[in-house]
Amino acid sequence: MEVRLESAVVRGFRFAGVAAGLRSESGRKDLGIIVANTPVAAAGVFTTSRVKAAPVLVAQEHLGSGRLQGVAANSGSANCFTGKAGVRLARESCAALASTVGCAMELVAPCSTGVIGHLYDLQKYRAGVADAVAALQADGLTDFASAIMTTDTHAKVASTMVRAGGSQITIAGCAKGAGMIEPRMATMLAFIVTDAAARPPQLRSILKNILPRSFNAITVDGDMSTNDTLLLMASGAAANRPLAGRDLNNFGMAIGNVAGALARELVRDGEGASKLVTVEVRGARSEADANRIARSIANSPLVKTAFFGCDPNFGRIAMAAGKAGVDFDPERLDVSLAGIKIASRGAINVEVLAGAAARMKEREFGLTLDLKMGKASARVTTCDLTYDYVKINAEYTT
Amino acid sequence: MEVRLESAVVRGFRFAGVAAGLRSESGRKDLGIIVANTPVAAAGVFTTSRVKAAPVLVAQEHLGSGRLQGVAANSGSANCFTGKAGVRLARESCAALASTVGCAMELVAPCSTGVIGHLYDLQKYRAGVADAVAALQADGLTDFASAIMTTDTHAKVASTMVRAGGSQITIAGCAKGAGMIEPRMATMLAFIVTDAAARPPQLRSILKNILPRSFNAITVDGDMSTNDTLLLMASGAAANRPLAGRDLNNFGMAIGNVAGALARELVRDGEGASKLVTVEVRGARSEADANRIARSIANSPLVKTAFFGCDPNFGRIAMAAGKAGVDFDPERLDVSLAGIKIASRGAINVEVLAGAAARMKEREFGLTLDLKMGKASARVTTCDLTYDYVKINAEYTT
Repeated sequence: MEVRLESAVVRGFRFAGVAAGLRSESGRKDLGIIVANTPVAAAGVFTTSRVKAAPVLVAQEHLGSGRLQGVAANSGSANCFTGKAGVRLARESCAALASTVGCAMELVAPCSTGVIGHLYDLQKYRAGVADAVAALQADGLTDFASAIMTTDTHAKVASTMVRAGGSQITIAGCAKGAGMIEPRMATMLAFIVTDAAARPPQLRSILKNILPRSFNAITVDGDMSTNDTLLLMASGAAANRPLAGRDLNNFGMAIGNVAGALARELVRDGEGASKLVTVEVRGARSEADANRIARSIANSPLVKTAFFGCDPNFGRIAMAAGKAGVDFDPERLDVSLAGIKIASRGAINVEVLAGAAARMKEREFGLTLDLKMGKASARVTTCDLTYDYVKINAEYTT
Repeated sequence: MEVRLESAVVRGFRFAGVAAGLRSESGRKDLGIIVANTPVAAAGVFTTSRVKAAPVLVAQEHLGSGRLQGVAANSGSANCFTGKAGVRLARESCAALASTVGCAMELVAPCSTGVIGHLYDLQKYRAGVADAVAALQADGLTDFASAIMTTDTHAKVASTMVRAGGSQITIAGCAKGAGMIEPRMATMLAFIVTDAAARPPQLRSILKNILPRSFNAITVDGDMSTNDTLLLMASGAAANRPLAGRDLNNFGMAIGNVAGALARELVRDGEGASKLVTVEVRGARSEADANRIARSIANSPLVKTAFFGCDPNFGRIAMAAGKAGVDFDPERLDVSLAGIKIASRGAINVEVLAGAAARMKEREFGLTLDLKMGKASARVTTCDLTYDYVKINAEYTT
């Protein structure tokens, strides 16, 4: 079940991305649509922020039926903190796509990303939807992914295949970052489609299972977005037998692999990021403990600047572990950085630090802590904190 | 009870700061001592990190008696994550000062700040202590404050006077930052001395009361140090009557004012900081709610880069409030930035944004959120996130 960082044709779905003039940068794609040939099984997970964007509220409502036929996603405006006018706008946006493809507006999920607190122009949106419907293609996923980018430097897509229920099933997805990323139920915007036949409760259950190890296990800046949305849609075109047992497991794992690949791509393209670092905490008393320490390290500005500076800084790692509020014995702690054990039982291995610093010049490495307190573990993927993060966020309005 | 950002003579105490060669930068002051004429009443609060530095463990033990005669504080090494050798070194450091001034070693509190995971040279330390004792001066507080600086750009001292118990009482203190700052019980290193006569339980009670609004209400980078220590010592030289009732209140408020001034100075001199921002959340259901939202905003990299960019970015403020896990109604939210109401009842006042951006060019301003959910409030003081924060922490090893 190899995951490729490329698009795939998924029977039953077509995609498009067009420039509708919703963004200030003229000519940039800013409206993406996904259209299924018929209503399909769907599930979604959303931000747990107390400030939920209007499209999140509307999408949650529309997903109550477990069915979708379309997704209408825009960049340029997050349609968040826009009150009742924002909710009306999100509904009108669904209606625009629904009337063009001929389905009920409740079968469309709206998604928005971009500047918070501003509405977008409905007339331009409607014209854009018409253009997008005319441009729908079976291999249009990358166009769709391009249309929802904000500070992302490239479109992020992933796909895989799995045999289940007697059929060859294809799964493809896309996601956008690149800042305000520490999802707590899903990521900024991510979409996964498959031609499998699956029931909405199965899709919901799969999403719940894969989140802790994919989108909920990454951070760019510790800032959870108001618009985090992950949608999963299954067209049934693969005509597989009903999925159960090992088939259902394999299908769920394949979805999880695509989600994990997309989540990693989000961090790799994190704002200003020059390095991708997977923080693993082992030997914890519980997965929650391991996760708290891994997150504390992955979000520490001092650890993240040390990654940027190629500094195998055991002290900052220990500091970030210590502040996580988890009980452990500092004198048992082993730490490996970029494959080199920089500390054993709480003491720094000074003679290996130069070697570790040299390995940290790679674009991707791991940091592993072994607490030796128990058997639980957790991983969080993060990036470094660079001049470019400051530049992007001091000069760009999100 | 005006607080001045300058040193003062406090009867009963002398101070010194010398260069003992503990730091890599030669000639820089790195060893500070405080010596009282006799054992005095003392109290301390320390980091709540699970990774406590050796001097924190030893100082906590020595403060059990409620008495101190000396403080021996060094920069250049945090003596943290140094195991049993670190604890021995901290005890030997106390003994070095104790034998020179002729008191029991349990009457000395050790404090260290600097690189984590390294021991300092005890021979150099002992020689430094001898030099420092020879250099003790009643007006030496600024020398002491200079000796404990790491990435601080200047020594931070504050003082005030208060009339209580029939006497004029002087209070003076100092603190050092400048990174790894989000104290949860105290700050990196801070010392407050007074000539008041007060009992150790009174001092402990005062520290507990003043922390939530001084050192525990600031953040530079959300990174709690392993060495956070605040010591309060009272010599009794003011010969006041026993403090009680309004006198004790006034004395506690004066201590709180000095602590508050030092805490603000820490943030003003935060690593790379160009702006000091006081985040106030009002109208919350509880102080804990208000504090969670204020901290979430004060630690958000996206909000902090917006401060740096003079961007009155309501969206990021709302995002950070939303992720705090506190229930509130976005449509009631009022937000004022630098004295300008940028959002009323959840809607941005677009016409005032340019004016707010202009005011954000000041070095100091406030951000106030009114949730209109209740009557509780909280304040957290923070700074902006700048290129220099990244530069300092990617190039400097702490």
